[in-house]
Amino acid sequence: MPSYTAPTKDMDFILHNVLKVSEQDTPGYADLDRDFTSAILEEAGKLASEVLAPLNVVGDTEGCVLENGVVRTPTGFKDAFEQVKAGGWTGIDLPEEYGGQNMPYIMYTAVGETSSAANQAFTMYQGLTHGAASAILAHGSEEQKNTYLPKMTSCEWTGTMNLTEPHCGTDLGLMRTKAVPQDDGSFKISGQKIFISAGEHDMADNIIHLVLAKIPGGPEGIKGVSLFIVPKFMVNEDGSLGARNGASCGKIEEKMGIHGNSTCVMNYDEATGYLLGEEHKGMRAMFTMMNEARIGVGMQGLAQAEVAYQNALEYAKDRLQGRAVTGDENPDGPADPLIVHPDIRRNLLDQKSFVEGGRAFLLWGSQMIDQSHRGGDEAAEGLVSLLTPIIKGFLTDEGYDMTVQAQQVYGGHGYIEEWGMSQFTRDARIAMIYEGANGVQALDLVGRKLAQDGGKHVMAFFDLVKSFIKENEGNEALKADFLDPLKEASKHLQAAGMFFMQNGMKNPNAALAGSYDFMHLFGHVCLGLMWAQMGKAAMDAVESGEGDTAFYKTKIATGRYYMKRRLPATSMHLTRIESGADTVMELEAEAF
Amino acid sequence: MPSYTAPTKDMDFILHNVLKVSEQDTPGYADLDRDFTSAILEEAGKLASEVLAPLNVVGDTEGCVLENGVVRTPTGFKDAFEQVKAGGWTGIDLPEEYGGQNMPYIMYTAVGETSSAANQAFTMYQGLTHGAASAILAHGSEEQKNTYLPKMTSCEWTGTMNLTEPHCGTDLGLMRTKAVPQDDGSFKISGQKIFISAGEHDMADNIIHLVLAKIPGGPEGIKGVSLFIVPKFMVNEDGSLGARNGASCGKIEEKMGIHGNSTCVMNYDEATGYLLGEEHKGMRAMFTMMNEARIGVGMQGLAQAEVAYQNALEYAKDRLQGRAVTGDENPDGPADPLIVHPDIRRNLLDQKSFVEGGRAFLLWGSQMIDQSHRGGDEAAEGLVSLLTPIIKGFLTDEGYDMTVQAQQVYGGHGYIEEWGMSQFTRDARIAMIYEGANGVQALDLVGRKLAQDGGKHVMAFFDLVKSFIKENEGNEALKADFLDPLKEASKHLQAAGMFFMQNGMKNPNAALAGSYDFMHLFGHVCLGLMWAQMGKAAMDAVESGEGDTAFYKTKIATGRYYMKRRLPATSMHLTRIESGADTVMELEAEAF
Repeated sequence: MPSYTAPTKDMDFILHNVLKVSEQDTPGYADLDRDFTSAILEEAGKLASEVLAPLNVVGDTEGCVLENGVVRTPTGFKDAFEQVKAGGWTGIDLPEEYGGQNMPYIMYTAVGETSSAANQAFTMYQGLTHGAASAILAHGSEEQKNTYLPKMTSCEWTGTMNLTEPHCGTDLGLMRTKAVPQDDGSFKISGQKIFISAGEHDMADNIIHLVLAKIPGGPEGIKGVSLFIVPKFMVNEDGSLGARNGASCGKIEEKMGIHGNSTCVMNYDEATGYLLGEEHKGMRAMFTMMNEARIGVGMQGLAQAEVAYQNALEYAKDRLQGRAVTGDENPDGPADPLIVHPDIRRNLLDQKSFVEGGRAFLLWGSQMIDQSHRGGDEAAEGLVSLLTPIIKGFLTDEGYDMTVQAQQVYGGHGYIEEWGMSQFTRDARIAMIYEGANGVQALDLVGRKLAQDGGKHVMAFFDLVKSFIKENEGNEALKADFLDPLKEASKHLQAAGMFFMQNGMKNPNAALAGSYDFMHLFGHVCLGLMWAQMGKAAMDAVESGEGDTAFYKTKIATGRYYMKRRLPATSMHLTRIESGADTVMELEAEAF
Repeated sequence: MPSYTAPTKDMDFILHNVLKVSEQDTPGYADLDRDFTSAILEEAGKLASEVLAPLNVVGDTEGCVLENGVVRTPTGFKDAFEQVKAGGWTGIDLPEEYGGQNMPYIMYTAVGETSSAANQAFTMYQGLTHGAASAILAHGSEEQKNTYLPKMTSCEWTGTMNLTEPHCGTDLGLMRTKAVPQDDGSFKISGQKIFISAGEHDMADNIIHLVLAKIPGGPEGIKGVSLFIVPKFMVNEDGSLGARNGASCGKIEEKMGIHGNSTCVMNYDEATGYLLGEEHKGMRAMFTMMNEARIGVGMQGLAQAEVAYQNALEYAKDRLQGRAVTGDENPDGPADPLIVHPDIRRNLLDQKSFVEGGRAFLLWGSQMIDQSHRGGDEAAEGLVSLLTPIIKGFLTDEGYDMTVQAQQVYGGHGYIEEWGMSQFTRDARIAMIYEGANGVQALDLVGRKLAQDGGKHVMAFFDLVKSFIKENEGNEALKADFLDPLKEASKHLQAAGMFFMQNGMKNPNAALAGSYDFMHLFGHVCLGLMWAQMGKAAMDAVESGEGDTAFYKTKIATGRYYMKRRLPATSMHLTRIESGADTVMELEAEAF
């Protein structure tokens, strides 16, 4: 059975050596000193390793069972959820007035990585609740906030997000679920929603569904969509639970992975719902939470890659197979460990350099969320809005690929469920799809974010890269191994942007045909920037002679690997982008 | 539920327009005119679509069940197997004297693609039998051939290959299974083998296990391994079945996919075995079949990509979601079909250009097997031996990635088992692992095949590329779209080979650290060559005005996509290779 240890040392390095969080003037950041963040992360890591990780395979094997409208979660999930709640983990970044701890979002992300890595299906129950609570926090009336948020912060009540219908996922304008206004100001919601994670289960007293629906007579398409609060049990004025509402689970989907989470078909049959935010502004309400939600999914991609890597690494050190080509390294044993073989190392270093670079990217993105939400920093808001589709799309694509590579280290044992490596792959696969499939992320990036506010956010990104290079090019070692490759990759990114500008006006397809490559090209440049920053931070630390010098040296070596071996992908993506739309659009649909 | 239609038109194009099989002087090829191959492939395709494909999901859902030592295959498998046997499909390339049809291996491969695409788990029962029969054919005594081959050709008896043990997969020198000589010339085989596909089931009267084991007192390691025939039921002199042998299934593995195939832990408890081939030459006996077996696995990667692509394409044409950015293409409908979107097309064209290029590569490889085995052509033998790890490793890696991309076209529905797309991904995953994990293929390519016979096979490959370019560079359209990119990619391959030569002598790790990239670089050049040849064949066909001009034009457009969008990956692989071993080997194992 696989195991998991939270990478707290690495998180500590990123938070303090790279992002220097406690030196930032973002509200709440002054509290984030090393002692505090370490204490939080160690504790979260312990819960993840000892409570959540052992249930990961259980959840996969047992899945969720629907019987007579009731969903039974896997053995142990309920007890574990009680422990999570008791520890106050469910509301660490939510406001204190509703029972939360008001920590910055960056801590929510770091803690979230540990529980998601340990047990993604389990963590989704609280993740969805967090998303729904955030929506109520942003758009709810005082009464709605007071009614729902205290219970959702503690996860006594959980939440769900209901967007997709059988005939529409990405294109929500096609939605059919109706919300008919009632005299008392409430609505009767009727329709079917699918793919509703945590839609029904036995771990909470109530479930607060957020449901997108159309009020008859409203505008056509996406502009006529409103958001509603639909509780599973009605809530009485005194906060006690009343009658069962007309919301029920019709089916649990059989999925490739995340079996421990109940993915429900939800049927709404004249269910009582309450408008959340304004009429017909449902999509806008959803969008305000979109960045956070998407960063959260990017985190899942990274988290599955991390846990898969940890186990692949252990296996590569333990499993004896073949001999090093340069001479036996374990002469007393029957064979050398797998890790002596160059191609196994290539595989492991792909994983290691991705998860460490991706973690920095994720935490940097989360820091910008805090700068935006807590600090009112519009530049940060613009930049994180630009980078969000990359965090989501690139980290989940690469994260998935890394779980596949981790599985490969095990040979045949990677294909057998007994070893647990297949589950990481199967669980990671969903992150490329939900919260906007990665093709949609690429479209959002190229079709929307790139030109937003006159393109000033992408300019800000380039400025950041340039000034980091300029400030540090006196450092010879950093320049050769990190800054020069970053400069080169950044040129590719600029050239791609230029190509879109020059060709996208005449023919939007010329840009869109390159959108997926652009997302990956941009992702590599972001990780290149992260590695350059981490390289510098590690070199500084080595020079200072303080701390774990071996750790910092490993960090530098891992970064060099990324810059040499992974970053050169930018050139290929640029070539593909510059090939334009011709070969992509040429064929008629019938000719395929 | 997904469907499958055999790509017979594409096979016809490759066999006749590109490879021109009936004009070749390889024994048996003169019979392969269009009418004959079409008749065979149409019939095979019908069986695949109508009989095997509908059982694919059944096999996945039910899996195989072990009860009291007996394995029950999924509902319908037994009947389908009877139909396959009745049609004579199981021995189409085996010798007539044992009941086969003696067709060239290229036809076995083409037919195999259809059944593997329709139902990989099912097809493995006959595939393993074919492998075992080939071993007996190559190394068996007359008596052994007469005893086993007629029943195995017809699949009345099926076969298995027993190599892996719990502690050794790739490194078979660590093997513990013992074969103790008996006075009557037979051996008593004892030990445990794992991952034995089709190890025990209810579809055949007898199962002929080929088992690798060590005769006590023989040479250490891999040089002391011998191959044995171990029947499930003893065979009497008159051919009737006798007592049950000491071979039994201890467990069926739970796997990520191919649930319809029984992957067994096989326990041999003083089972009677008969030496196949020479003592201590077991590995050599295995290796003579290795090329065919590995090409067969490459075929599986391609086959899963093909069926996944077919279904993704249908979905992209049917599913209405969003609007084309250049204006509505389905103005009367609520939305446009997915296929109008550039990124969906990019995704589909990645798949289409891979499966068509991969199919040509596979059939070319199979043709060389025929030239070698039937025609005694040593040059062909050398070249196919060089290319085999690429066919296996590249086609299964890319094939898997394409199933993931196909799944992505479905959005959330791709993650739900109901739509069947997840199964293609899960089934395709094993092909990257078994018959030598792909890292081992890369090692075989760079560490062994590249320098084989003084490097003359790789020189032959380059000559082939060069002379094709030279012969055709008068064709302007072909030159610009196909030959120039091929030349460029081929230069990258040569540069990589040069890097290995210059650096690998001093430091073998410098070559091995680039082995995986080299396999992919080489794979792309092979597909580039295939596309250049197909481009030319299609242009010739268009010019002749005969046949389906629209088909040929689509072929040219698809080829242009590959050359523009996929082939440029060669440059990235070269950059990685040229970064050498430093970043890969630098870290101590403990530092990871």
